[in-house]
Amino acid sequence: MEDAVMLLSGGMDSGVLLAWARGRYRTIHALTFDYGSKHAPREIVMAQRLAQHYGATFTVVELRFMAELFSSSLLSTGPEVPDGPYRKDSIATTAVPFRNGIMLSIAVGYAENLKAPLVLIASHAGDHPIYPDCTPDFIDALSRAATLGTFGGIRVEAPFASYDKKRIASIGRELGLDFTMTWSCYKGRELHCGTCATCLERKEALEHASGKDPTRYLA
Amino acid sequence: MEDAVMLLSGGMDSGVLLAWARGRYRTIHALTFDYGSKHAPREIVMAQRLAQHYGATFTVVELRFMAELFSSSLLSTGPEVPDGPYRKDSIATTAVPFRNGIMLSIAVGYAENLKAPLVLIASHAGDHPIYPDCTPDFIDALSRAATLGTFGGIRVEAPFASYDKKRIASIGRELGLDFTMTWSCYKGRELHCGTCATCLERKEALEHASGKDPTRYLA
Repeated sequence: MEDAVMLLSGGMDSGVLLAWARGRYRTIHALTFDYGSKHAPREIVMAQRLAQHYGATFTVVELRFMAELFSSSLLSTGPEVPDGPYRKDSIATTAVPFRNGIMLSIAVGYAENLKAPLVLIASHAGDHPIYPDCTPDFIDALSRAATLGTFGGIRVEAPFASYDKKRIASIGRELGLDFTMTWSCYKGRELHCGTCATCLERKEALEHASGKDPTRYLA
Repeated sequence: MEDAVMLLSGGMDSGVLLAWARGRYRTIHALTFDYGSKHAPREIVMAQRLAQHYGATFTVVELRFMAELFSSSLLSTGPEVPDGPYRKDSIATTAVPFRNGIMLSIAVGYAENLKAPLVLIASHAGDHPIYPDCTPDFIDALSRAATLGTFGGIRVEAPFASYDKKRIASIGRELGLDFTMTWSCYKGRELHCGTCATCLERKEALEHASGKDPTRYLA
């Protein structure tokens, strides 16, 4: 078995990936990024609990420059997160420029330093039409850059690349994941808002997987 | 003409790149990274002066997590920088894991946010045998990841990829660059040490280009 570094946001997809990865890899090193998002205070607590629950090492990397330099409604410095399902215009506001490229590159450096050969990310088929840095082609290109750019020839893999969010929720349920240990809402209030694009997706996926969604929503 | 974002360390190579890029691009946005290296206090001052001199915008990105999480003699938290020319064993100590991958990815995000189509880096043929994240193949792979992973289809280019350090010094001299505005020494003392690998390379290149090297060395 090999060691793996993984991006753990504390969201549903990376929570399921952690449950899935446990037992498949020797040690799992979870990396969580504090990039100044509105939901960072909610997400990071979930990520820490998940890592502890599944026996992964847990490290938070501070990337506060993103909220200073980049424009996005996801960031604490940005405009309000729009309500309603993903549409082209709402996507443009929630995208954080090259976020996965930046987080994966740091994870590759971290893996090189630990001599771990692999970096995992939970990007999936539901993300592809929305964000360019979630597509399988992008992940493959970044993996090639990582392999060429490190002494250890590190790979980047997205095991859920061909799955949609409903299937990921089903895998989580089969693995016994407690979904209340994950956070999706972009608004970062005390409870999930239930109306932003990521809350709507979460509801749909969890209802599909479990018959009922254990999340408490504001609306 | 298009805008360009460039990595400006304050070293000789990126100093020459900035002089070379001026006039070739509309606005040049210089990004400097404070990643906790021993020579950061010297380099960053040079980078700021260079940017001002050549009319580039200047931004420092703090990446202090590197000195906390990564092991390298280049970092303030690492062992002493070895003296003498580059050799396999000294390379292993001065390498910062996937440093160019991380800095380029942040520059790509920054370019996406500014709607600039291009990121420039001063990596060159002298670097290739030493650091894997300086090779043309690596830069090409990362450029492909950047193009696929951004709405703007951003490219990464290394205009000096096929040049050695002597040729870069000659270009700098032809462009009238004042080399005392650049910093090379990894040790970060008040003057260049004159004995570490990067000082030895600097001496050789500047003597080749100008007949004499204007740098003041400790030894």
